[in-house]
Amino acid sequence: MSATLMIGTFSETDSAALQDAFDPVAVSSPSDIAGLDIAIRDGISAVAFKGHSPFGAAEMDMLPGLGLIANYGVGYDAIDIEAATARNIRVTNTPDVLNDDVADLAVAMLLATGREMEHASAWARTGKWKAQGEYPLNRKVSGGKVGIVGLGRIGREIADRLAGFKMDIHYFARSEKETPGWSYHSDPVSLARAVDYLVVALVGGKETEKFISGAVIEALGPQGIVVNISRGTTIDEGALLDALETGGIAGAGLDVFLNEPDIDPRFYALDNVVIQPHQGSGTHETRAAMAALQRDNIAAFRQGAALKTPVN
Amino acid sequence: MSATLMIGTFSETDSAALQDAFDPVAVSSPSDIAGLDIAIRDGISAVAFKGHSPFGAAEMDMLPGLGLIANYGVGYDAIDIEAATARNIRVTNTPDVLNDDVADLAVAMLLATGREMEHASAWARTGKWKAQGEYPLNRKVSGGKVGIVGLGRIGREIADRLAGFKMDIHYFARSEKETPGWSYHSDPVSLARAVDYLVVALVGGKETEKFISGAVIEALGPQGIVVNISRGTTIDEGALLDALETGGIAGAGLDVFLNEPDIDPRFYALDNVVIQPHQGSGTHETRAAMAALQRDNIAAFRQGAALKTPVN
Repeated sequence: MSATLMIGTFSETDSAALQDAFDPVAVSSPSDIAGLDIAIRDGISAVAFKGHSPFGAAEMDMLPGLGLIANYGVGYDAIDIEAATARNIRVTNTPDVLNDDVADLAVAMLLATGREMEHASAWARTGKWKAQGEYPLNRKVSGGKVGIVGLGRIGREIADRLAGFKMDIHYFARSEKETPGWSYHSDPVSLARAVDYLVVALVGGKETEKFISGAVIEALGPQGIVVNISRGTTIDEGALLDALETGGIAGAGLDVFLNEPDIDPRFYALDNVVIQPHQGSGTHETRAAMAALQRDNIAAFRQGAALKTPVN
Repeated sequence: MSATLMIGTFSETDSAALQDAFDPVAVSSPSDIAGLDIAIRDGISAVAFKGHSPFGAAEMDMLPGLGLIANYGVGYDAIDIEAATARNIRVTNTPDVLNDDVADLAVAMLLATGREMEHASAWARTGKWKAQGEYPLNRKVSGGKVGIVGLGRIGREIADRLAGFKMDIHYFARSEKETPGWSYHSDPVSLARAVDYLVVALVGGKETEKFISGAVIEALGPQGIVVNISRGTTIDEGALLDALETGGIAGAGLDVFLNEPDIDPRFYALDNVVIQPHQGSGTHETRAAMAALQRDNIAAFRQGAALKTPVN
């Protein structure tokens, strides 16, 4: 027997499609694996994984026949890749199909923060427009200086969009890229010092933890706006909160946080932050494409064909 | 004596700059002109105008020496141009300097409406994210079909930005333009039928009144989103409200309304509308540029030089 294990909370549509294709066993979190019968565990050769709870060596060791973890999402920081590779477990993710949506939300949060759209909306809806007149002036976004931290595929989609707003594009990446007139910075403090908007598009995981440090945030300065669509881990969240509370930076547009969805309540007290509930890829079109790619990877594995989007 | 009359509510900075340059008489609305002494009225040769209250033949006739109305703003629909021309009064406006800001807000409202950002923000801030989980999926914006109604300078700025989102660009204009692969429609119903997003970037005034008619809104259909950064007059607002209330269209992002700021309260009851308080050009940078251009036009008039941005 070669069975599939679903881990996580899938939509009804995605769940039904997985059922149709692979008739899987289902649990809601990697921590539930220990509760499965040994006979079932021994039969599992592929996992359809969704979520952000850690999937590490201990969980893998409870699935001795495991050959594939097909992750739903581009970010696979919940999965211990090194442990998987050591056990000859292949990992796949769902890159590219979500780039557009995530880039859209990054740009939308940058504009919404810069143009104070939530406040302006409340100004109208609470009657202040009528009672007190014009909404106070805010800041021009077009033509500003933006720094993209991480010029991977999503970072580049963001930069391409912002180029249409005549923004002066700066970026950090591990190495300089071929870019049309964009300015490369080899360290994030230099990048932050050069710009007013900092958009974080790094991969998650240990290597990028607190990459946006207190020093980077300080270099961005009081006119600075931070946008994060990567992972909560990539920013020193305590330093970010301090800067937002004290005027060290002007504002932030954040789709990702530490400890989602139970995020630090200090965020809720701030009115210079646009908070989005990690909905970057949260459209019907893109989630369907992500789920299809996850299933395609499992099907390829079952058929012994080349994996569509391997990670290791 | 050749005096200047300020009409409208100017910011402290703009007001001080006008005082420095022209030592003007000030009133808050064209309807206040009748209350000025005849001796003062007879001395007025230039008006620095700001606002949306009608400035027509009756007001012009009370200023027999008037030679210039310098409007603050690109839209001059409050001024009766025909009456001004008949009286040999020149009119200027402040085009171009606000294109970027207005286009930014148009794109931001399109994204915010499509991606339901206000709802998603409330989902996080009211604790639903924590209690109920993921925000419901919404719609992909990138790659969608957008129709720009009016491909003037602002319309083109909007289209250029949306091209960066890989949108399929359609437009209505009085005549076909040279455009890079965009689709021309000679009537707005055909345009609305072809797209999911309709962005209204017409000039205001009698000629474009209710140009976005009930028939256009119906052609846009239940998946359609309307964005308006032009004037409240360009849309049949009753038909728009009906469609928003009944699901005739999906939503709207609106910066302009009839009877601002005392807008129709039906808008406040709708949760599929992003309401902005006519803040399209409302940034420090752009308002300063608009005020400077208004003063430059008055200065040119006083010096007998060519007007910077004449309308008639």
